[in-house]
Amino acid sequence: MTDLNTLDRLVALFAKLPGIGKKSAGRLAYHILDGDPAYARVLAEQLLALHGAIRRCSRCGSFTETDPCPICADPGRDSSLICVVERAQDVRVIEESREFRGRFHVLGGLIAPLEGLNPGDLAIGQLLNRVRQDKIREVILAVNPTVEGDTTALYLQKLLKDTGAEVTRLASGLPVGGDLEYADRLTLSRSFRGRVKL
Amino acid sequence: MTDLNTLDRLVALFAKLPGIGKKSAGRLAYHILDGDPAYARVLAEQLLALHGAIRRCSRCGSFTETDPCPICADPGRDSSLICVVERAQDVRVIEESREFRGRFHVLGGLIAPLEGLNPGDLAIGQLLNRVRQDKIREVILAVNPTVEGDTTALYLQKLLKDTGAEVTRLASGLPVGGDLEYADRLTLSRSFRGRVKL
Repeated sequence: MTDLNTLDRLVALFAKLPGIGKKSAGRLAYHILDGDPAYARVLAEQLLALHGAIRRCSRCGSFTETDPCPICADPGRDSSLICVVERAQDVRVIEESREFRGRFHVLGGLIAPLEGLNPGDLAIGQLLNRVRQDKIREVILAVNPTVEGDTTALYLQKLLKDTGAEVTRLASGLPVGGDLEYADRLTLSRSFRGRVKL
Repeated sequence: MTDLNTLDRLVALFAKLPGIGKKSAGRLAYHILDGDPAYARVLAEQLLALHGAIRRCSRCGSFTETDPCPICADPGRDSSLICVVERAQDVRVIEESREFRGRFHVLGGLIAPLEGLNPGDLAIGQLLNRVRQDKIREVILAVNPTVEGDTTALYLQKLLKDTGAEVTRLASGLPVGGDLEYADRLTLSRSFRGRVKL
């Protein structure tokens, strides 16, 4: 093997990213090496600036450059609705759908005792405070339809019962454009239980 | 949309890389933001060092930190064999297969008149010089089995005819582990024409 230290180190670093294998990492590194050095410089600058520029919003826990974040600070959003998500990046996904005009709350994980994640490790106390103080009308649980998501949703549902807020959860079922034939049994069963009247 | 300038810029930069779409770019950026700032710093450092540390080998044209590159400088390699490749990254792929113990020559592209790539744009003169000066016994054309690869192979074959070197090309046919059913017509036709006696 040619002893390309800088290149090899770059490949090894890229290969640590999610969804990037050794082959893809090599392709990325060579693409950057083959390309304009200005691209590598700008990418490096953004990486160096990243952790300094971005922090957590003290209210909702999502990533932001200002505190409170633009969503929490926006008076045009419905302050009586809270959408609860697992991770900060989920905020971005939901924002891009333009389906929700309320505020967010980032849990910072889901309840998973086997992985050592208990309710005390999540931002659940803060959620309860916000629901009580801001007179929240509805809490939408936008957690994934997984075992951990189900556990967390059940836990939060019980906890939020006496706050007076309505607790809902995103519908689970067949994906749009999907095919019955390729749906797994659990998804199919959920889409039956959640069937809607036409 | 939350106005995350640094994050958005990083996502946009990642999305310019080959094989990285907007969703993957977001995943990568959030992964780095969620992770150890030291990782972002080291990645940035390697990106900044990359173009300064790595240049082209003046003999074979592959990427290297020293000139001549370790492969050209290695006296243990067979100096009478040259493997001709399209791009510098192909050297890495072939080296990893540990199948070849000669030297390399990077063309810097393939003949593609429609894309404005003519023989004069490739390192073909240097190849001829090397073949003549180093008394090369065999030139192995390791170009892709594409129209451009075929054109380039034919061109080089004619050009190298009176150097006395044998000119060969990598076998083309069914990939190992592949299935006849999924092979395209051209691959199947090549694997017939290149069939070997058992």
